[in-house]
Amino acid sequence: MQEKIKVGISNRHVHLTEEIYNKIFFSSLKKQKDLNQNGEFASEQVLTIKTEKSEISKVRVLGPFRNYNQVEISRSDAYKLGINPPVRKSGDLLNSEKITLIGEKGEVTLQNCCIISERHVHVNPQKAEELGVKDNQSVKISVGGDKACILFASIKISNNGFYELHIDTDDANAAGIKNGDEVEIII
Amino acid sequence: MQEKIKVGISNRHVHLTEEIYNKIFFSSLKKQKDLNQNGEFASEQVLTIKTEKSEISKVRVLGPFRNYNQVEISRSDAYKLGINPPVRKSGDLLNSEKITLIGEKGEVTLQNCCIISERHVHVNPQKAEELGVKDNQSVKISVGGDKACILFASIKISNNGFYELHIDTDDANAAGIKNGDEVEIII
Repeated sequence: MQEKIKVGISNRHVHLTEEIYNKIFFSSLKKQKDLNQNGEFASEQVLTIKTEKSEISKVRVLGPFRNYNQVEISRSDAYKLGINPPVRKSGDLLNSEKITLIGEKGEVTLQNCCIISERHVHVNPQKAEELGVKDNQSVKISVGGDKACILFASIKISNNGFYELHIDTDDANAAGIKNGDEVEIII
Repeated sequence: MQEKIKVGISNRHVHLTEEIYNKIFFSSLKKQKDLNQNGEFASEQVLTIKTEKSEISKVRVLGPFRNYNQVEISRSDAYKLGINPPVRKSGDLLNSEKITLIGEKGEVTLQNCCIISERHVHVNPQKAEELGVKDNQSVKISVGGDKACILFASIKISNNGFYELHIDTDDANAAGIKNGDEVEIII
């Protein structure tokens, strides 16, 4: 089957535990904008991510707090920072990259926190049943136009899953996709 | 049919006429390294490309001189520069973007010179016959791994064509490809 799906492009961002957050920020985490995934939000807080080679500023902190610290960047960012993070699902941080987070209050260096997010399709259990897909199943995303391609993405089922394809800025730029565009999902 | 093909990743670069080159450089165009496409080379010369919004330095000049001026960038570069170049074949510059080139000697602003290069597969006429492909034919490039995808690319037949897939850095980063990697071409 084939149908349309909306695209959410993830720019580099950070998820933090409350403990780590309080080590590097004075201010409390303040919601700036709700994200489509129910309960998730972009905060007003940004930080700098730093490696031995380079740094990138204005990296957005997402909320709410999680029980792990995770920095999600693109391969382009990784080259700039001189690191080689693995392509992973959220929370799968074993043997991922080390990075230093610098907030308004201080800095902290975290081992095994930096990944490139695997392309994924958010669905809730009802939508998964309708589509006939299982968690982690690979599906095809078909993109037309002058940067035509087919991207493989992984199904991610969660109770708050808002039906949407998440890709990073490298994928978006390679495929000529803008945030909110509609593409075809093929199952 | 399906077979392996080597990938050449094109970073942002510039092709110039001798006239424009001499307006912005004192030194003569000096070969630094031969490229795989027979007769083409990376020169020692680099320049800065500039728009109203931003600039990018150390953009390599390729040789030999051409009968048109062309700046090839990625979509990521285009966002940084605040312009919207079309995805085009080399030399197809009608209604492309304006950019300012700054060399050691001076600067020049060129209308209709900046594009994003269409993905293409270089072949010579003999290889094209062997593959059974025509000029401009679309073929599929299959990439495995954790950034798996299928990229559509256009066949480009030329007498000096060295069999190779040319993609830009956005494509490479989205697909997890490094320069010189081998991927599958499907015809």
